[in-house]
This record gives sequence, C-alpha cells and structure tokens, in this order.
Amino acid sequence: MTRLDSVIERLQAQRACLDWAVQAVAMIEGPVLELGLGNGRTYDHLRARLDGARRILAFDLALAAHPACVPPADCLILGEIRQTLPALAARGFEAALAHADLGSGDLAKTAAMADWLAAQLPPLLRAGAIVLSDQPLAASALLALDPPPGTARARYHVYRRR
Amino acid sequence: MTRLDSVIERLQAQRACLDWAVQAVAMIEGPVLELGLGNGRTYDHLRARLDGARRILAFDLALAAHPACVPPADCLILGEIRQTLPALAARGFEAALAHADLGSGDLAKTAAMADWLAAQLPPLLRAGAIVLSDQPLAASALLALDPPPGTARARYHVYRRR
Repeated sequence: MTRLDSVIERLQAQRACLDWAVQAVAMIEGPVLELGLGNGRTYDHLRARLDGARRILAFDLALAAHPACVPPADCLILGEIRQTLPALAARGFEAALAHADLGSGDLAKTAAMADWLAAQLPPLLRAGAIVLSDQPLAASALLALDPPPGTARARYHVYRRR
Repeated sequence: MTRLDSVIERLQAQRACLDWAVQAVAMIEGPVLELGLGNGRTYDHLRARLDGARRILAFDLALAAHPACVPPADCLILGEIRQTLPALAARGFEAALAHADLGSGDLAKTAAMADWLAAQLPPLLRAGAIVLSDQPLAASALLALDPPPGTARARYHVYRRR
C-alpha cells in the first residue's frame, strides 16, 4: 500500500464513520465535539450532515482551517486542549458525539494524548453518545463498537458511551 | 459536496490517473517527471507502480516530503521550477511521463504557472508521452485525452504529447 493508497483509505474511513455516527446519535440530544479542527475538512463534513441541527464545538491549538471551514467564534476553542477541554466538564457539558483526530507523526506524543483523552472524554458525553477517534481510546466507560462498513481495519475507532 | 468529499474525489482521481498512465507509457522509453513533490504521496505511488523500472525526477521549491518519500539526491531538484526545469531541455531530456501537481490556493498564480508549464513541458517529452496535471494545460503539442474511469470530471487533466 502506497502513501497515496493509505491517505485515501484513511479519509474514506473517516467519512464512513462520520456519516454513520450522525445517524447513530439521531435520538440523543446534545452538541458535537470536534477535537482537532486542523484544516477543517471533517468539521465541514459534520456541519453539512448535521445541517444546523447541533452546535459543533471545535478545538485546536491554533487556527489552521481553510477560510470556508472556520467555526463561529463562540464555537471555536483555541489553545492547549489539556487546558481547554477540562473546563467544559465544570460547566456540565454533555455531548452526543465526539470526533477526535489528534494523532501526529510523533508516536509517543500521540499515545500520551490518547491516554489523556480516554480519561477526560467520558464525563463530557451523554449516555449512548458516540466517539470516533483516529487513535484507540481505552476507558471502561467507552464500549468499543465495530466500525461501519467502508472503514478499513484499524483506521478509525468507534465507541459508545455506556 | 463537503471539503472531505472533495479531497477524497481528488485523491482518487489522482490515483486512477497515475495507475492508468503507468500502463499507457509501458512501450515508451524515458524517465518520469514529478513536478511538485509536496508530501511525496504521488511520488511514493509512482515509485511503487514503476517498481524501479524508470528514474523519477522530482521537483519542488523546498523539500517538504515525508521521510519515507524523499527521492535519492541525484533525482531531487529543489528550487524555483522556472529556473530548474528549463535546464533539463538544454540536456536533451525526454520523459515518458510527467505528473504536475503545482496548483495552490492562489488562483492567479496557479493559472500563470499552468500557462508557463504548457509552454515549457512539450520539449521535455518523448512523442507519445503522457502528461497528468491538476491544472488544464493548453498547448498545441499536447492532445487532451479523456481521463480514465474513476476520475471525476475536471479533477485531473490528461494529455498525450503529439
């Protein structure tokens, strides 16, 4: 598999998971967490699929999104996520869906971020909420689900908040 | 179409064109020009599909490729392509395949680059050579071909050197 094959596989997995998750949380109230806005492609996709029905709170260290994919100011939380995400918990935040795409080329840093997120995320989720993640998240409160059809093995990870 | 849909479509078009072109030039001798190495994904794909059978000369302003996709030093030409590419013509260079992915977010700059490339490229190509380009290239020496199946309309442009 070439790196071109690999990126196509990863983006298709991402899209299949996002499309599935939007349906899977249809009966669950709450906003959406976009953890790692990046260039804004998945934000744009979620925004289109949700069609204004939910707020999407987008997090990133710094704004690097395409101009067409910049969230409104009150839904954009910039800064170190280890500081910004825990602040939500204090406000009784309960999301229906979280999408985390926080992996980088640094494997050790990526693993540490996944460990941190697995501990922080469950209290921010309503029961039954769906989590999509580029990294595996090990938490007793998160039940691993089979990714939807179209998701190549181990390219994306899907969980339901118990 | 979301920006996630769009990038998937563009990368699939790129792959379909590269796979087709490698077959299409099977009977034509000569090296390959990779104009715009970028992150090296298409270089990696061409390298795998060609399986060592041809040299791939890769051009870029500066090296930004993934470490696994860096061409050997004698096949990597860094610097302003308007200076580096014409130097090949003086050496009687004749490629069998050229892949140009030089578009940027700046539409005027991208159009100017495509105009420049359309004039510079034909003398560097053997008769029958294939050109793949993210931008349309208008040159009497380049015959526009229908892109191969799997290429969404107008996402990639295919030419044969007359």
